[in-house]
Amino acid sequence: MTMPRTLMASEISEQPDALSRTLERLLPLRVAARDLAADRRHVLFLARGTSDNAAVYGRYLVDIHTAQRAALGAPSLVTHYQVSKELSDTLVVSLSQSGATEEIVAAQRWAARCGARTVAITNVAGSPLAQEADLAMTTAAGDELAVPATKSYTAQLLAVAVLADALGSEIGELEVQLRRVPRVVRELLDDKADLATAVELLASSGTVLAAGRGLAYGTALEVALKLEETCLQPVRGLSYADLRHGPIAVIDPDVCAILVAADRGPMLEGMLDLASELSGLGARVLAIGGGPRLARLADVHLPGPDLEERLAPLGLIVPGQRLVESFARHRGLDPDRPRSLSKITRTDRRTAGPR
Amino acid sequence: MTMPRTLMASEISEQPDALSRTLERLLPLRVAARDLAADRRHVLFLARGTSDNAAVYGRYLVDIHTAQRAALGAPSLVTHYQVSKELSDTLVVSLSQSGATEEIVAAQRWAARCGARTVAITNVAGSPLAQEADLAMTTAAGDELAVPATKSYTAQLLAVAVLADALGSEIGELEVQLRRVPRVVRELLDDKADLATAVELLASSGTVLAAGRGLAYGTALEVALKLEETCLQPVRGLSYADLRHGPIAVIDPDVCAILVAADRGPMLEGMLDLASELSGLGARVLAIGGGPRLARLADVHLPGPDLEERLAPLGLIVPGQRLVESFARHRGLDPDRPRSLSKITRTDRRTAGPR
Repeated sequence: MTMPRTLMASEISEQPDALSRTLERLLPLRVAARDLAADRRHVLFLARGTSDNAAVYGRYLVDIHTAQRAALGAPSLVTHYQVSKELSDTLVVSLSQSGATEEIVAAQRWAARCGARTVAITNVAGSPLAQEADLAMTTAAGDELAVPATKSYTAQLLAVAVLADALGSEIGELEVQLRRVPRVVRELLDDKADLATAVELLASSGTVLAAGRGLAYGTALEVALKLEETCLQPVRGLSYADLRHGPIAVIDPDVCAILVAADRGPMLEGMLDLASELSGLGARVLAIGGGPRLARLADVHLPGPDLEERLAPLGLIVPGQRLVESFARHRGLDPDRPRSLSKITRTDRRTAGPR
Repeated sequence: MTMPRTLMASEISEQPDALSRTLERLLPLRVAARDLAADRRHVLFLARGTSDNAAVYGRYLVDIHTAQRAALGAPSLVTHYQVSKELSDTLVVSLSQSGATEEIVAAQRWAARCGARTVAITNVAGSPLAQEADLAMTTAAGDELAVPATKSYTAQLLAVAVLADALGSEIGELEVQLRRVPRVVRELLDDKADLATAVELLASSGTVLAAGRGLAYGTALEVALKLEETCLQPVRGLSYADLRHGPIAVIDPDVCAILVAADRGPMLEGMLDLASELSGLGARVLAIGGGPRLARLADVHLPGPDLEERLAPLGLIVPGQRLVESFARHRGLDPDRPRSLSKITRTDRRTAGPR
């Protein structure tokens, strides 16, 4: 591994430790989480931005791994439409690294008033979200100084996975795999991935899109968001299905398609098909994960984690983070302080006025 | 109004009649819909592509207008992950114009097996979705020959609104407004909107995005999808919040931002703010709806419908459709037969193989 040159690079490299610490802190909370959700058939995630990409993963993981049904909440229903709902069948999971995102704090308060039980996943123990939740799952990523979230994001994903393990048919089904995550992430950091060729591919493309499906969909959204905010490269993050239902019409040789997939699982065949189809239309394919079969169909391949599909997103983002950090420097940008972004984004500049 | 030159233009102009017929057919089904949902606290929408944009509207409208909680389902949870869920608290609403979209048919069957009651919104009475649902709400858009969905889409929106009226605290609260829709759509068709200037603006922009919020978010997605598939113009459809949390970093004078908003309602202030901010960053703003205040902040303004916010999406898409049809012809494309699209898109080319 080369010497970290930026805060972002050094925070990327801290992830194995951050994940180990977070795991030790959160695993003991599973019984409390399970008790809290015992009579709850629904899990509702509330988040914005990067945290929302973690919630997209959480939605699929909870739906796939547990008997509960998961959904993504729209904070504006609370902040602007003042809806009132019966939430006595629901566990609400709020995600915010700072634990202070105003509209998420407002939405969690609303949920509690409506009868929901609440879990807050934050990186700040004393934050409003953490203090007010029935259960605070506080990650141990440590201070994050670069504006782009890296270790705080993977720690969120880990918290979501620990929560899913708590809600599954038996606590601990995911534990062996969870304990492998820090080591697998370290392997990805040590991997001599061909970042230079990947950066070259991005730099020579007029249009970049990122697609994933199911459990890996949130990773594609996060790669797109980070490339956009850190590298000032417009990138559309898309689900596999949305790509097929529209943008496929405008694929041409100027397009670089970043495809994200776990090495195994039911989504792989479709992603292989998509890679072939995109190549046939002249696009260049940059694959993250997907194993040797996707690698063979891609122009550039960044290996993903050796983790089962349910936990693969905890590692899949890592080559994406390294790519973003390298590409920002290639463009002469400071990845630690992207233009026109601050650590906490406010969705509304003024306090939203109810009408 | 100029003479229709394309099938798409003529189907756009048929919408007042299609909406009148659909309204007369569906209003009497409200009691049956209400009975079906009587013990159901959750409404789950299942759809893909254009129908999914109608579902996005439905999700907000049901959450805002009724006591039920609405969510968007991910068909891949059924087709690829074979999840099993308890749906005895749920009304599932499937949308597909043909009523034959394979994965939606599969998902509706799955939902029924899991205990859901089912409503199918299609434009084809004998279709599998319609035949198998507990209640078929079949729109009366008539045959649609152009590939881009126009009248079948607004008829879907109308069906969703009739369903929401059925599920509200009292049947009929939306009826007066619903009955105004065909006339208001006709006014929009007769409006001497400055389509030529709007087309000019799109043609001179390197990057186009479309944003909306809350009830109008689905309209922004649909404008983006239609511009992309019909005009081969890559367009990102975004929520207001997602735009603020990422893409705002890459706004420059080459960007045309299409902002969609109702003339009134709690989202208008935020959209005015966003228009000012985007203009300040040098982007050109093409406003659809939003009344005189948004018009003043926009480079080009296409007036929206005189409908309350809950039903505004039924008219807001109409200037968007006219824009798409004009822009396609401006580009020398045939809007009736876009490249590489057929009337029914299959998400998976092969039958998805369970693992």
